[in-house]
Amino acid sequence: MAEKLDFISSSIRTFQDFPKKGVPFKDIFPILKDPKALATVIDLFEEYVRSSYVQVDLIVGLDARGFLFGPLLAQRLGIGFIPIRKKGKLPGPTLSVVYSLEYATAEAEMQQDAVTAGQKVLVIDDLLATGGTLWAACELLRQQKAEVLGCLVVVELKDLGGSDKLKPTTVHSLIQY
Amino acid sequence: MAEKLDFISSSIRTFQDFPKKGVPFKDIFPILKDPKALATVIDLFEEYVRSSYVQVDLIVGLDARGFLFGPLLAQRLGIGFIPIRKKGKLPGPTLSVVYSLEYATAEAEMQQDAVTAGQKVLVIDDLLATGGTLWAACELLRQQKAEVLGCLVVVELKDLGGSDKLKPTTVHSLIQY
Repeated sequence: MAEKLDFISSSIRTFQDFPKKGVPFKDIFPILKDPKALATVIDLFEEYVRSSYVQVDLIVGLDARGFLFGPLLAQRLGIGFIPIRKKGKLPGPTLSVVYSLEYATAEAEMQQDAVTAGQKVLVIDDLLATGGTLWAACELLRQQKAEVLGCLVVVELKDLGGSDKLKPTTVHSLIQY
Repeated sequence: MAEKLDFISSSIRTFQDFPKKGVPFKDIFPILKDPKALATVIDLFEEYVRSSYVQVDLIVGLDARGFLFGPLLAQRLGIGFIPIRKKGKLPGPTLSVVYSLEYATAEAEMQQDAVTAGQKVLVIDDLLATGGTLWAACELLRQQKAEVLGCLVVVELKDLGGSDKLKPTTVHSLIQY
């Protein structure tokens, strides 16, 4: 386990001052470039999910980097994947939630028939920072009366307080900074 | 084979007038929601790739819906996945290409160290319409002296001439409209 985490951790690169001055950006794409590292990430998520939950009905992934990991995990678990996207990208009847970013607001959207009441879902993204997008995702799912079991992320930036913002929903992260 | 294609085809929904009047939008997300349909898509891509190419080094996926299929196919083939994104989203040294959309231009970007000269790559996206984004992706890869073996898409809208625009690069699509 510790060995697997070290292996993944060594695949994450930090770029200073991206996308703006003062922000150390965690680049998870080297994980995707190494098939062993990506398989290890999905192994760890799968082990965690199987040992933590009796039943999961759907994996919900956030546009765009949640799309990299969500379908892989859903396939491993033999369940479906549904997306949450920025407003305006999904056809048909949708519902949306406005959430705050550092200096702006954004709107997350889901197709209305994506989940049904009572379905047990896990939300996945690459990284937890302030938690705005994941919060909006959980809110959308609760509006549809889905049961949000928790959130999964590869990387958590602890200092930004995202996991507090998401409470009482729990976040499981593989790597913490 | 025909049965598998019918199965996938039955999972694709059409929404009229999205994102604007006169456009019939092909919604591929029901494929993702059904684990058997998603597995079938990846089966068909894998069969095609293994029977068509002796060696593939990387799968290149386009932000955002290419991210849904690319890592799955890359894992099946035991190779790496790299992203091409809209400008401004990838850290570190990058190169970019401007391409035209119907009424505007956009810019596709790739990390400079994502591919090395001579690597054999396949580009994947969900849908081929006019081919602007896939063309830009192939152009970026050629600038880095990668060998673009071809493009893979789930859905091809034949009337929009995307496969002509991409010539001499070939496109393999599972479903055509």
